[in-house]
Amino acid sequence: MSTVDKQLDEIASTITNQLPDRISVTDVTYEGPELVIYTRDPKEFARNGDLVRNLAGQLRKRITVRPEPDSLTPEADARAAVLDVIPDKADVSELDFHEDTGEVVIQAAKPGMVIGRHGSTLREITKKVGWTPEVVRTPPIESSTVSNVRSFLKQEREERRDILERVGRQIHRDQMSDDEWVRITTLGCCREVGRASFILSTPETRILIDCGDKPGSDDTPYLQIPEANPLNSLDAVVLTHAHLDHSALIPLLFKYGYDGPIYTTEPTRDLMGLLQLDYLDVAAKEGRSPPYESAMVREAVKHTIPVEYGDVTDIAPDVKLTLHNAGHILGSSVAHFHIGDGYYNVAFSGDIHYDDTRLFNGAVNDFPRVETLVMESTYGGRNDYQTDQADSEQRLIDVINETHDKGGKVLIPAFAVGRSQEIMLVVEEAMRKGEIPEMPIHLDGMIWEATAIHSTYPEYLRDDLRDRIFHDDENPFLAPQFNHIDAGQEEREEIAAGDPAIILSTSGMVTGGPIMSWLSHLGGDPDTTMTFVGYQAQGTLGRRIQNGWDEVPMNGGRGRGGTLSLELDVETVDGFSGHADRQGLENFVKTMNPRPEKVLCVHGDERSVQDFSSALYHNYNMRTFAPKNLETFRFK
Amino acid sequence: MSTVDKQLDEIASTITNQLPDRISVTDVTYEGPELVIYTRDPKEFARNGDLVRNLAGQLRKRITVRPEPDSLTPEADARAAVLDVIPDKADVSELDFHEDTGEVVIQAAKPGMVIGRHGSTLREITKKVGWTPEVVRTPPIESSTVSNVRSFLKQEREERRDILERVGRQIHRDQMSDDEWVRITTLGCCREVGRASFILSTPETRILIDCGDKPGSDDTPYLQIPEANPLNSLDAVVLTHAHLDHSALIPLLFKYGYDGPIYTTEPTRDLMGLLQLDYLDVAAKEGRSPPYESAMVREAVKHTIPVEYGDVTDIAPDVKLTLHNAGHILGSSVAHFHIGDGYYNVAFSGDIHYDDTRLFNGAVNDFPRVETLVMESTYGGRNDYQTDQADSEQRLIDVINETHDKGGKVLIPAFAVGRSQEIMLVVEEAMRKGEIPEMPIHLDGMIWEATAIHSTYPEYLRDDLRDRIFHDDENPFLAPQFNHIDAGQEEREEIAAGDPAIILSTSGMVTGGPIMSWLSHLGGDPDTTMTFVGYQAQGTLGRRIQNGWDEVPMNGGRGRGGTLSLELDVETVDGFSGHADRQGLENFVKTMNPRPEKVLCVHGDERSVQDFSSALYHNYNMRTFAPKNLETFRFK
Repeated sequence: MSTVDKQLDEIASTITNQLPDRISVTDVTYEGPELVIYTRDPKEFARNGDLVRNLAGQLRKRITVRPEPDSLTPEADARAAVLDVIPDKADVSELDFHEDTGEVVIQAAKPGMVIGRHGSTLREITKKVGWTPEVVRTPPIESSTVSNVRSFLKQEREERRDILERVGRQIHRDQMSDDEWVRITTLGCCREVGRASFILSTPETRILIDCGDKPGSDDTPYLQIPEANPLNSLDAVVLTHAHLDHSALIPLLFKYGYDGPIYTTEPTRDLMGLLQLDYLDVAAKEGRSPPYESAMVREAVKHTIPVEYGDVTDIAPDVKLTLHNAGHILGSSVAHFHIGDGYYNVAFSGDIHYDDTRLFNGAVNDFPRVETLVMESTYGGRNDYQTDQADSEQRLIDVINETHDKGGKVLIPAFAVGRSQEIMLVVEEAMRKGEIPEMPIHLDGMIWEATAIHSTYPEYLRDDLRDRIFHDDENPFLAPQFNHIDAGQEEREEIAAGDPAIILSTSGMVTGGPIMSWLSHLGGDPDTTMTFVGYQAQGTLGRRIQNGWDEVPMNGGRGRGGTLSLELDVETVDGFSGHADRQGLENFVKTMNPRPEKVLCVHGDERSVQDFSSALYHNYNMRTFAPKNLETFRFK
Repeated sequence: MSTVDKQLDEIASTITNQLPDRISVTDVTYEGPELVIYTRDPKEFARNGDLVRNLAGQLRKRITVRPEPDSLTPEADARAAVLDVIPDKADVSELDFHEDTGEVVIQAAKPGMVIGRHGSTLREITKKVGWTPEVVRTPPIESSTVSNVRSFLKQEREERRDILERVGRQIHRDQMSDDEWVRITTLGCCREVGRASFILSTPETRILIDCGDKPGSDDTPYLQIPEANPLNSLDAVVLTHAHLDHSALIPLLFKYGYDGPIYTTEPTRDLMGLLQLDYLDVAAKEGRSPPYESAMVREAVKHTIPVEYGDVTDIAPDVKLTLHNAGHILGSSVAHFHIGDGYYNVAFSGDIHYDDTRLFNGAVNDFPRVETLVMESTYGGRNDYQTDQADSEQRLIDVINETHDKGGKVLIPAFAVGRSQEIMLVVEEAMRKGEIPEMPIHLDGMIWEATAIHSTYPEYLRDDLRDRIFHDDENPFLAPQFNHIDAGQEEREEIAAGDPAIILSTSGMVTGGPIMSWLSHLGGDPDTTMTFVGYQAQGTLGRRIQNGWDEVPMNGGRGRGGTLSLELDVETVDGFSGHADRQGLENFVKTMNPRPEKVLCVHGDERSVQDFSSALYHNYNMRTFAPKNLETFRFK
């Protein structure tokens, strides 16, 4: 009998002893980090809400109760009963019964009304029919990504359960080593931006944090070094957020034999899938052979175990993970690792925004304990201060008004995820408040899809924005001014020839995508203002236009090769960034509770990490490091 | 066709083009770091001494010429011819013909006379008989270790050649990576003394430097971490010297799948075998199960490729190794690694003695290039200054005289390798010069055997000592006063009951071995002086006696359990150390040519490495580090 089986046997008898005799326990297993209790008396569990809470507290585990099939009300009867319990205003769009697990997945426009006060409606459902309800939100804007992910996971339920059981046994295995240490190995994004990847290791456990690409370069994380191998012996992958410089090469891990879990937030899982598939698409369009097939993206999604902000999750015998809001993009996280029983704590900042933005609350920097912080330093340079957000917004409003007065269009190249939604919120509010005239706002490229994903997960947005979406039905993303460009060139031509409008289009650095087509339509129009709201990297067309080039090469487009003479105005509005600036980074560390002993400054160019590392050392008297790639630091 | 075969083909045609038509080349292969040229015309090669030298220079390889069997004078005729060429005074004790390689191994008391001026006698032999002579020294004191190693290697010739061919192909494989970096991973002996072990790695190559135990502890190097695995993919092991805290666990590598070469000096190979077998013996006697069997020690010896001081040796496609005298014990080395084509240079000090001692020249610290030095710090503490050697010697002489005057014995616990021979030289000289009276000097335990190995390799001893052994037949180790205790308890009893004498016996810290027996015979004798000449570690009986204990527990001995009351005098004579003191360590770095940019201070307790690291930083403005175990540093 394996040690995990012994452990489960002991837990089963503890549970049986704790529960009243009338409640049966037929089996106890692990699924991923959770302990699953099978019973013939699901209704009794639902009637005694404290039972599970008490067991969870005593066993220090997350617990799921699962009914045995024979204790369930048959599906047809159950369907009517469930709909009867849920208030109509919840607007249920789908009920999906899974007999294997006794779960009923309820998709509703208002999940809160399905859940009820402190989960009362959910318990009511189980009391009536025995089934365990699971609630998901009906996306208020239809997102093909979300619906694809959901139907894919539904189709793969069985394999996914096998994976979770295997992972569960791995997590709860006995500790083997008497030794104690904590190490971090840098596989990328040290003294550079891009290819974020780290290994956190103990004598028991190895965890990969992020696995990104490096934009504008073929460099990949150093996955081939012994510290990362064999990949299939890694215990877990933790993904801080979906941007490709953190996520692009995660599917590659599965190609090379990794078969374990990915811990991340649910929106990050969906955005990751969207961006990885786009990454393959772009590679194919540019004639590069992509490093993996789309099947590997599906593997990644299938192996993802979603974690909510603040939930303490066992991911290895000696490691607990907690994700916290990082304020950077939807679902972005600061990853906190608690190692051993109070032995050591490490936080990886991922990419952060310290102050609140229109979209997100500021990054969390309050933890029970932290000894070492691995900290992004993108804008860590001594002069990396950004314009105040209010000033930036006013400047954008001025540009829009000036352009509208001329009768022209505002053409904004923007990244699909994050920046676009921020601009949408600014423009929607300005229009609502009458600070700019009413006019259509066209969204081209992946922006619409990314926005749909945002509005599927309002819990991950800033408090007041979430409340507007939840309670007041004032979802700003549903404002009628927004138009999704979905009819291709014809629609674009019509818009280009028409009245004043605002156009947001990818790619954000004018390196491809529909913005190229907009440029060919509007580039010769002196009334149009091309407005840059994000960083334009060296070597991109965006940077060239920003720098005043007025002849740009146009390959393809509507069959026209050659060059295009730009007549449009060019404006740059700074200050819309998903990253904390130097002050924000410093504030994150300064106000961090508790203040870490050591800080590894990463994810910034050489100058930024050196500046930031030395500033933290001098101003706050911490031990700071500016690691190189391929180094290993030992703590304790 | 593999790339190595292609490479050999190209080399073969280069060689054929270079050689006169009359000299045939039948095959070209690699054996370890050497290029082997097979020919039917060995005599022609011998007649044209410059041919091989020119080829070696052009190809930048070490070259061995091997005759095809059919070009050789038959063994019986050849034996007479060889003996005819060699002067009688060379005192040949053995001729061993190996038809597979066309080599004849000549064991002689005077190898120099077999070699002749600039190798003239060797060439003469080949010119006459075609065979390639290889010369080894007849040990002037019979060493069972040396003779066992030699006969074992003779018996394993065939397998050894297979190993060398395999290693040769590995060394000369094509480089695969475009990447360039150099890393050092610490597996042991950081902020501690013991379990020395490091990995030097590049994108191509991983080399393990040392693999020792930690005396007084069960701690072993961190061989289980991914950086060291799989062990069979390590390219090479380099051993700086034979002491167990550097060599004890090398046989374990073979148990765990390593099957590659060990590069070290020839005397280190022999001493390593001696000490490892003793290590197993001690473990067995103490009832511990040893970590490996003696068969693994034989594997280690079989896989050793001896390297001479100063020889630049290819050990990987991108790494050249050169060993230099370290002055610490017989065969001890500073290991210098030249990486890439001028890309980077790292030196590992191993254990060093900076100043000349009676036995050895001081450590070499002159290199073509060195960017990083990994430096021992045993006596790196701010107060770790040792007594001047002349004062120490005088003190020892005084103790001997005082004891002799009382009619007693001087009982010296000493380590078999190094310390004992140093004391032997002091005492022999003092006696020769009349500074102490003539009396027998008894050598007990492994001391005699270790001394025999020293006198087999006079090239590795201090210049003037070597010259005395070579040229003047004044081998001090052969002085008639020295007596090897080889008749056990009876002999000891007789000596203990007899006239004044000096007794050197292992173990050096009175933790076991024949010193325990001497203690039981002489412990109650007030005329005996127990004289400590080496460091006594915490917790050893030696340290207790040094501290004034006069009741010591005696387990076993001549059947007597219980305690022994000590009546003998106890003296400590400092200053006989194989290690540089703080001044010596600093001088090694200060006068090093070139001065390294970075120094990793290792092999010292926490205080010593911190003191030494900070002193080097402040006094010489170098980047210094005091690594922990399990860290990885990247250079370039």
